[in-house]
Amino acid sequence: MDAGAKEQRDPAWWGRRAWSLLSAVRARAPLVQCVTNLVSMDIAANALLAAGASPAMVHSLREVPDFTPRCDAVYVNVGTLSEDWLPSMRAAASAGRPWVLDPVAAAASGFRMEACLELLALRPAVVRGNASEILALADRSVPAASNFKGADSSHESVDALEAAKSLALSSGSVVAVSGAVDFITNGEQVVGASNGVPMMQKITATGCAVTALIAAFVAIEPSDALVAAACALAVFGLAGEIGMESSKGPASLRMHLIDALYCLDEEMVTSRVTIALRP
Amino acid sequence: MDAGAKEQRDPAWWGRRAWSLLSAVRARAPLVQCVTNLVSMDIAANALLAAGASPAMVHSLREVPDFTPRCDAVYVNVGTLSEDWLPSMRAAASAGRPWVLDPVAAAASGFRMEACLELLALRPAVVRGNASEILALADRSVPAASNFKGADSSHESVDALEAAKSLALSSGSVVAVSGAVDFITNGEQVVGASNGVPMMQKITATGCAVTALIAAFVAIEPSDALVAAACALAVFGLAGEIGMESSKGPASLRMHLIDALYCLDEEMVTSRVTIALRP
Amino acid sequence: MDAGAKEQRDPAWWGRRAWSLLSAVRARAPLVQCVTNLVSMDIAANALLAAGASPAMVHSLREVPDFTPRCDAVYVNVGTLSEDWLPSMRAAASAGRPWVLDPVAAAASGFRMEACLELLALRPAVVRGNASEILALADRSVPAASNFKGADSSHESVDALEAAKSLALSSGSVVAVSGAVDFITNGEQVVGASNGVPMMQKITATGCAVTALIAAFVAIEPSDALVAAACALAVFGLAGEIGMESSKGPASLRMHLIDALYCLDEEMVTSRVTIALRP
Repeated sequence: MDAGAKEQRDPAWWGRRAWSLLSAVRARAPLVQCVTNLVSMDIAANALLAAGASPAMVHSLREVPDFTPRCDAVYVNVGTLSEDWLPSMRAAASAGRPWVLDPVAAAASGFRMEACLELLALRPAVVRGNASEILALADRSVPAASNFKGADSSHESVDALEAAKSLALSSGSVVAVSGAVDFITNGEQVVGASNGVPMMQKITATGCAVTALIAAFVAIEPSDALVAAACALAVFGLAGEIGMESSKGPASLRMHLIDALYCLDEEMVTSRVTIALRP
Repeated sequence: MDAGAKEQRDPAWWGRRAWSLLSAVRARAPLVQCVTNLVSMDIAANALLAAGASPAMVHSLREVPDFTPRCDAVYVNVGTLSEDWLPSMRAAASAGRPWVLDPVAAAASGFRMEACLELLALRPAVVRGNASEILALADRSVPAASNFKGADSSHESVDALEAAKSLALSSGSVVAVSGAVDFITNGEQVVGASNGVPMMQKITATGCAVTALIAAFVAIEPSDALVAAACALAVFGLAGEIGMESSKGPASLRMHLIDALYCLDEEMVTSRVTIALRP
Repeated sequence: MDAGAKEQRDPAWWGRRAWSLLSAVRARAPLVQCVTNLVSMDIAANALLAAGASPAMVHSLREVPDFTPRCDAVYVNVGTLSEDWLPSMRAAASAGRPWVLDPVAAAASGFRMEACLELLALRPAVVRGNASEILALADRSVPAASNFKGADSSHESVDALEAAKSLALSSGSVVAVSGAVDFITNGEQVVGASNGVPMMQKITATGCAVTALIAAFVAIEPSDALVAAACALAVFGLAGEIGMESSKGPASLRMHLIDALYCLDEEMVTSRVTIALRP
């Protein structure tokens, strides 16, 4: 085991890392180009702003050559994929910036699956999906109707852990599977992040928003996407936990989550972020 | 009068039906494909999630053949209509699933009116609009400028009741007219649903959101779209009434409405849903 | 100095004007066509509704001939510009209605800068941007990467004051620069509006929303766009100040701001709007 892996066995190390990355996002305000779905734009932009990053929803192919190279990271999300947006996704992903992929409902259609696989070949730093999305991507197939719940997962995150490891190895990307426990893997190491509350699944595009946050963290720490992704997932989940304390339903949770993300301080992050290296 | 009509004269019957349908949405989480306008995506998706359904904002023509047949219902809304989205609307509406149409601002232009009439010919289970929209559709015409308020209605719902009946008969669809009282008709029976608060009109896309909810209820009860639509309208209006109790303006109402929709229980629904068969 | 300029030296005059314009928006509910970016649609529509206007998010070129002439004002925003939307922007701006331009992130690309300059040549009543946007527009250039923060400003509003005056003179439009103090100028007169709170910058699309509100005010007062723009900026900023009193972060501020905009009364507006003619 190398030194890095050794210190990662200390849970407190993760809290410090999460705080250090969040602080750097606040201090440097990384510019994150989002080529994302139409549903998630509001919450993704607001989550990035609340975390201290600078979101830029720019999707025109005409703007990629001038704009993307000036960004600190790129976020591509296929939630409302259409043929006219795909070339921009490809171009933004190919512009030499660290980038992150959210393969929303990868199994919705053959068209979408192909697009996801093609984007995956452009080697995102991180792919984040729910268990059903990661299983479908690893399997490169559109599953049967009976197993399909659109953008919602019909599997637990642990069910997709082996698929995630295999996908990470074959793609060269860090793969994150969201769920009650989020698993993040580079194919060898596996990290579990346990922050969050179930009601977050009742808010549309929370998955999209956290992937946007991963992009901001990757902008700060491009050389360790595994750590960046795990910390972003835990920080977002922690904001959900804190938000949940004042919430009566999914809409108030959405508000309080964003407020909490804005208000997180060192004590909260270092004491409550729950990330652990899996044996 | 048949037995069904007889029991529908009992107001308590409607409360039980509304609760039974909402419970079924929560239990079965119907997958609802939404080809909807760009403004309403967030609130429509969140309303569907809060009610227990699974929203899927999928608008690419390329995805319809694989995706739409796996959905439990389809929701088409022309609020931000453009030429490139219309083929997807047609295809999704023609995919053999029960579907619901929201003819937002039908009279905005000749282009939009033609699109609405063309979609109407594809026989939605339900068409829901405000009085001005239903009047324009029934009249198949773009009214004069003086009578036009964009997506807002310049008529009371009762003004459109005869038009709604006539439109229902000619189209074969259930027609719902939103207003202080919502009227729902199949051309013969007319049901009035009285839940809701006026401030809901000060929140963008509440009309779109309730039409999405109608689609979820139709997914559960495709064989009785009249009952499904009336119950969805009343349940959404009731969530508005409960939300209003904690609200100081339209933005807090929006939040509390969604929270209330999530929290509705049997006692609230059976005691407060106000639906009545009109004589 | 003319009589108008003289009375504008009285701060109380501005409070009365702001209240009078807001009251007229509530009374007349001007129909405002918005060809705006995908991120801002929700908040812009909700801000317009809360202020009493009637928003219409209509972006199809096919609808402009029928629809735009029936509107009281037009709002064009390039935040998520793409080639397919630009013709609609041009057409809506050319339809003979008073219109307002928001050149979001004008310097994002050569494509966007050209589009902004082309739209500017169609003579909007008002152009509102942040300091970086106005500086870039006045300079007709895409600045170097080091100075670029996407949609966020890397300058104070006062830094762009001379650029704003020069742009106003060359374009014939009123130019508004948002910041801690908003400056509004026709190239000769300069007005400063000081309402608002810094946290508004942590909510996506507040700039877009206030430009939409300017369009509603211009619909009421097309012959004095300077006054309309200054009052709209101050009223929106005041709603932010009042909203801030109950907020814990940017998401609750967003909600409370919209609620406050809806609830503003004469006493609040006349006593708290802070606008001053600059010497």
